[in-house]
Amino acid sequence: MTADHRTPHPPIQLQVDLGDRSYPITIGQSLLNSPELLARHVAGKRVAIVTNTVVGPLYLERVAGLLREAGMQVTTVVLPDGEEEKHWGNLMKIFDVLLAEKCDRKTTIVALGGGVIGDMAGFAAAAYMRGVPFVQVPTTLLSQVDSSVGGKTGINHPLGKNMIGAFYQPQAVIADTATLDTLPDRELSAGLAEVIKHGAIIDPAFFDWIEASIGLLMARDPVALAHAIQRSCEIKADVVRQDEREGGLRAILNFGHTFGHAIEAGMGYGEWLHGEAVGCGMVMAADLSHRLGFIDAATRERIAALVKAAGLPVTAPDLGAARWLELMEVDKKNEGGQIKFILLKPLGRSVIMPAPQDALLATIAACTARTA
Amino acid sequence: MTADHRTPHPPIQLQVDLGDRSYPITIGQSLLNSPELLARHVAGKRVAIVTNTVVGPLYLERVAGLLREAGMQVTTVVLPDGEEEKHWGNLMKIFDVLLAEKCDRKTTIVALGGGVIGDMAGFAAAAYMRGVPFVQVPTTLLSQVDSSVGGKTGINHPLGKNMIGAFYQPQAVIADTATLDTLPDRELSAGLAEVIKHGAIIDPAFFDWIEASIGLLMARDPVALAHAIQRSCEIKADVVRQDEREGGLRAILNFGHTFGHAIEAGMGYGEWLHGEAVGCGMVMAADLSHRLGFIDAATRERIAALVKAAGLPVTAPDLGAARWLELMEVDKKNEGGQIKFILLKPLGRSVIMPAPQDALLATIAACTARTA
Repeated sequence: MTADHRTPHPPIQLQVDLGDRSYPITIGQSLLNSPELLARHVAGKRVAIVTNTVVGPLYLERVAGLLREAGMQVTTVVLPDGEEEKHWGNLMKIFDVLLAEKCDRKTTIVALGGGVIGDMAGFAAAAYMRGVPFVQVPTTLLSQVDSSVGGKTGINHPLGKNMIGAFYQPQAVIADTATLDTLPDRELSAGLAEVIKHGAIIDPAFFDWIEASIGLLMARDPVALAHAIQRSCEIKADVVRQDEREGGLRAILNFGHTFGHAIEAGMGYGEWLHGEAVGCGMVMAADLSHRLGFIDAATRERIAALVKAAGLPVTAPDLGAARWLELMEVDKKNEGGQIKFILLKPLGRSVIMPAPQDALLATIAACTARTA
Repeated sequence: MTADHRTPHPPIQLQVDLGDRSYPITIGQSLLNSPELLARHVAGKRVAIVTNTVVGPLYLERVAGLLREAGMQVTTVVLPDGEEEKHWGNLMKIFDVLLAEKCDRKTTIVALGGGVIGDMAGFAAAAYMRGVPFVQVPTTLLSQVDSSVGGKTGINHPLGKNMIGAFYQPQAVIADTATLDTLPDRELSAGLAEVIKHGAIIDPAFFDWIEASIGLLMARDPVALAHAIQRSCEIKADVVRQDEREGGLRAILNFGHTFGHAIEAGMGYGEWLHGEAVGCGMVMAADLSHRLGFIDAATRERIAALVKAAGLPVTAPDLGAARWLELMEVDKKNEGGQIKFILLKPLGRSVIMPAPQDALLATIAACTARTA
């Protein structure tokens, strides 16, 4: 990263290689101002844009206008914002509008927003008339580096996160880095959690780069952010290419998530951002990796320090040990009765395995905030 | 069909050829008494049987008992019976039980019942944790000859039938013809509608056989029924093999359904059985085919006579022409604003095309019951 950080760069294009479900990811500054980029990925004449009450006022008119200028009939659905809104009721609102406006099987659904919108709009696209085309326009760092790539879609159930959904690949992902200018600090940090994750599980050199660049990233340097997005998408696309339906390898992308999902469910969805829970979950997974002798104490501290420098929580909420275990048991990586963890062995490589209960309880105790 | 109709026959096995999603269909008498047939198709140790309040009392204990004897942990979900129950609320009940009982990603969902149970349990299998294994045990003629084959799953929306769902193939279909002994007469007729459809659209010799055998079929002759099921499954499997996701050819399986769906929605789901609406819809589609010069009047009468001999309605309800058009417009075969029909050209071959409005209105008028 020695280039002049203020020079505008041409868009970066990556390909997610999944046979006849392959699709391009375009990353660049101000892509949503481009009159033809989005229209190029819409096959028919009808588009339904799904967004939320926060992103809608910023970008909906611009995106809808570009598509209308390209001769398309545009339907819009604006949902409430937040992880706690990722439920069946809001999914039904999408179907209600699509059917009321007689959207046909060739209507393309465009997800304009963060991970929640992408997951709900993607599942709506998978299920509407048993499948219509779908384009992702992620507007948060988290969705640009993670959730818009790989085809996981779905909604939450009161008893578990992402329990109802589909693997459904988009026609294209368009990540406009200019949309990050208006992102709240907490959400920037939440996105960095997944960037750190990609380095930790698979690419130690990228982890080193994130450590060295965390100041630039927190200052929203556009070139540093574009590189973080590009490398994250490359890593994730490569893992998904090898294991689209999470038969094995893909599970490593859940590093920090077994703990993180328990935090989200235990605190009530929406209390912690997903990325915040994953950040803290990675610190816990690193602690557990250390207890099992897979990484040394210094590496555990490096990970905790980077999570902290990214503005993320490193101390877990005190849910009580029994509740922690109960919440992790329902996690969908739990198969055949054993909770499986993604652990580092060493930093930059991951293993998937159950953990001895005493080590797990020690990690929960060590990482948990004590209330007086 | 010159064999002795009372001799027990060995089970018939067909293969639905869909590459890595291929699966076997087994058809035979008293297959649910076989201790190993079902267990053979369950990979893991956990099974969730989804059934309804009518089929459950007849077969649930037997099927659950066989699986428990094979060492499996069995969860059961009993839903209310009827097409009007094929909605999100009942789908959620399946997820509620699966999650409350901590069913994991390797749990096999078994659909024990007719088309409604198969569609809902199949969509639950497609969406639970983004996809778990699925086995169909159809217990009605309609589901044995039609809905259990081909991977269409889903639920209804107040604005349209089957509007939310997935293409999701089972691991196996097990059709026990003994379950037809307890089937109500109306449901036997409803199943025969789809048998007649398979002959009409693709196999004139099979249509002739159905005409010649309608007495035996209505008398529930087991060998005649087994042949009707086998030939229907072969025809449907062959169409689905060529066009799994209904890009083109598969739409011919919707013969009678554009009119039929309008009848079901217009009368309120559950008032007419699906097969009854399809039977009447085929008479209407034959009338429209005749008006466009594709079949002669005698052929139109042959189709109407066979539908009537199968105990199905041949006179359409008087919904009013405007309501008819409105209801057909939302049908999912409606693409780009035109209602498309499956028409016979001639009997035993089908075409997919829009129809001139005057011919369509004439068919509606000719086939509709006039209230005084």
